[in-house]
Amino acid sequence: MSLPAAAPVRPFATFDHRRRVENLRALLDESNDDAWLFADLRDIRWLTGFSGSNAWVVLRGTDLTLGTDARYGERAASETAGSGAQVIVEQQRSKLNERRLQALSGCASVALDPATTTHSVWTELAKDLSLSARPSPIMAARQVKDVAEVERISAAAAAADAALIEVESMLNVDDDQQVSEQEIRNQLEHRMRLHGADDRSYATIVASGPQQAARPHHEPNERVLVNGDTVIIDVGALVDGYHSDMTRSYVIGEPTDEQRQVYGLVCAAHQAGIAALRSGITAQDVDAVCRDLVTEAGYADWYLHSTGHGVGLEIHESPFHSPSSSETIVAGNVVTIEPGLYREGFGGFRIEDLILVTEDGSQSLTHAPKRPFPDHT
Amino acid sequence: MSLPAAAPVRPFATFDHRRRVENLRALLDESNDDAWLFADLRDIRWLTGFSGSNAWVVLRGTDLTLGTDARYGERAASETAGSGAQVIVEQQRSKLNERRLQALSGCASVALDPATTTHSVWTELAKDLSLSARPSPIMAARQVKDVAEVERISAAAAAADAALIEVESMLNVDDDQQVSEQEIRNQLEHRMRLHGADDRSYATIVASGPQQAARPHHEPNERVLVNGDTVIIDVGALVDGYHSDMTRSYVIGEPTDEQRQVYGLVCAAHQAGIAALRSGITAQDVDAVCRDLVTEAGYADWYLHSTGHGVGLEIHESPFHSPSSSETIVAGNVVTIEPGLYREGFGGFRIEDLILVTEDGSQSLTHAPKRPFPDHT
Repeated sequence: MSLPAAAPVRPFATFDHRRRVENLRALLDESNDDAWLFADLRDIRWLTGFSGSNAWVVLRGTDLTLGTDARYGERAASETAGSGAQVIVEQQRSKLNERRLQALSGCASVALDPATTTHSVWTELAKDLSLSARPSPIMAARQVKDVAEVERISAAAAAADAALIEVESMLNVDDDQQVSEQEIRNQLEHRMRLHGADDRSYATIVASGPQQAARPHHEPNERVLVNGDTVIIDVGALVDGYHSDMTRSYVIGEPTDEQRQVYGLVCAAHQAGIAALRSGITAQDVDAVCRDLVTEAGYADWYLHSTGHGVGLEIHESPFHSPSSSETIVAGNVVTIEPGLYREGFGGFRIEDLILVTEDGSQSLTHAPKRPFPDHT
Repeated sequence: MSLPAAAPVRPFATFDHRRRVENLRALLDESNDDAWLFADLRDIRWLTGFSGSNAWVVLRGTDLTLGTDARYGERAASETAGSGAQVIVEQQRSKLNERRLQALSGCASVALDPATTTHSVWTELAKDLSLSARPSPIMAARQVKDVAEVERISAAAAAADAALIEVESMLNVDDDQQVSEQEIRNQLEHRMRLHGADDRSYATIVASGPQQAARPHHEPNERVLVNGDTVIIDVGALVDGYHSDMTRSYVIGEPTDEQRQVYGLVCAAHQAGIAALRSGITAQDVDAVCRDLVTEAGYADWYLHSTGHGVGLEIHESPFHSPSSSETIVAGNVVTIEPGLYREGFGGFRIEDLILVTEDGSQSLTHAPKRPFPDHT
């Protein structure tokens, strides 16, 4: 798969929902189960196109049935037309649950993912059905992105790139220009939409100074940026259901030797992770490449989180680059590489790009430049 | 409880986490369980103050323990100081899970809510622990808001009120001023922050015209508002973790007789619902008051959703006003009353206020005026 030079724009390539349904049906035919019951809304969106907040889907023989409530009746019919799903609409939850049982009645074995089903729902269904705990085959399929998906993720990444580039000038603070974390956050989220995003992907992080930048998931507050601060900006956009994810880090004013050294170490870890990322490597090894480099430099206890994760219909999805991961990277994965170093009293740095794994290497979907020292390049 | 005349501003009243923990401990002492394990992040925030995205909490005897990952170590310690929780931080999920088992080791019966626990997690825990399926006592307690909570919800409602009032002038469309659903949505979300919100409460709905306003949960798109449209704007803010929720409806240009009639019916249902809302009424009856009025007028099949829900740390929480509800309204509940009528080809109207139930009636937290016909008042 190769990407166009410019960011993709609407209308994007259409999804082939019917092919996805057929592939899943072939898997079901080969299994010992009579039907699949899907409850995860991202799985349901991937399979049928439905984007509402309440639905179940049953795949059984040649039937594909989607149940939803009356808020979404008209939308479900139009969005799922390409999947061939039969849409059932009930206003009341109890009736919608009854219709789910009807769609599955007589099945000897219904496959269901226990990781996305509450114990309450499982127990309730198990009164009437013989359930098989199976990991969702859609979650597995979703890890390998097709061209239509990469287009949307690329457009989301481009919206975040453009917003960040515009907002970086706010970091040149002096007596005449003061700016808070929240003001930067507000501008980023507003500008991503002006650059084509439907929304932000997640609550944007702007973390500054010796305490707040030392918290990897700090929520922006009214703190004003001052000379000497380290600043972490973690920002992504949402386009047609697909997320992007990126982080850039900065020093306000003249960087100290320690700031230059720690930033250089994060940068080296980030580059090593990207160089290592390819089809066939384990997600554990991707994590180890970055983590070992930091450990050898004596900063192991500054490395507070795992090195990355898949991105698609969810902002965090498989594969996960962590020391305990058992996953393997394959072509079509879209993942972050995001080493970070944090220390109370110092602050922190994180660098994160969004990367498409290809047949023969990888390709970055993030194009925002890395300009850690805006005043002193 | 009485509210100040003006919207509350920061700093808000502090939460009494220690009292909440003590009340819960008294409940546990009276029960047959040795410990409670909490997994729902809203429950955990309510009990301890922790606002991160990954945690478990164990309440056992005089011990309160919160486990989280290394992204949140420093934040967990500062946020939970008032609750007396002991904070455990582990970088790896597997180790954090081990620490959870340790905190519960030797318990003869661990209470856990099956409605907020996945079947995977339940099954995993059940290998080592004797689990009791119990509805969360925190979710029950969360339904009755204290002064500190009502302050935050009121501030959120006020931010949405102020943003909506400013944005209503965009509805005066003519040849010189065109506006899309998305542009209105963007302005609302931007302006709520300028009026003190941390964020929007949920993805703002702006739904216009004969098709899109007929979808109760339409996602705003590039459609431009034109004369004759019905328009639904459903907007809320988030303040310190607490949500608000409000809907106003409009006609662009001169309303037709049918538009006036349907709007009047929604308005009558809304007023009847608010008049009925009081401590002691069932949530089912609140729904019925609005629904029956619409049914008698011959519009039953335009009434596509239930009549309201509780609002707090979640945008949708108990109690739920629906035909199948078994809940009863009590003083301290903060709930929406939001009847709506929708028809493909016509469009739709919904009116929604956020209401605090008091000892002797109710009090609206929403103050935005209802101006359905901006050009023809």
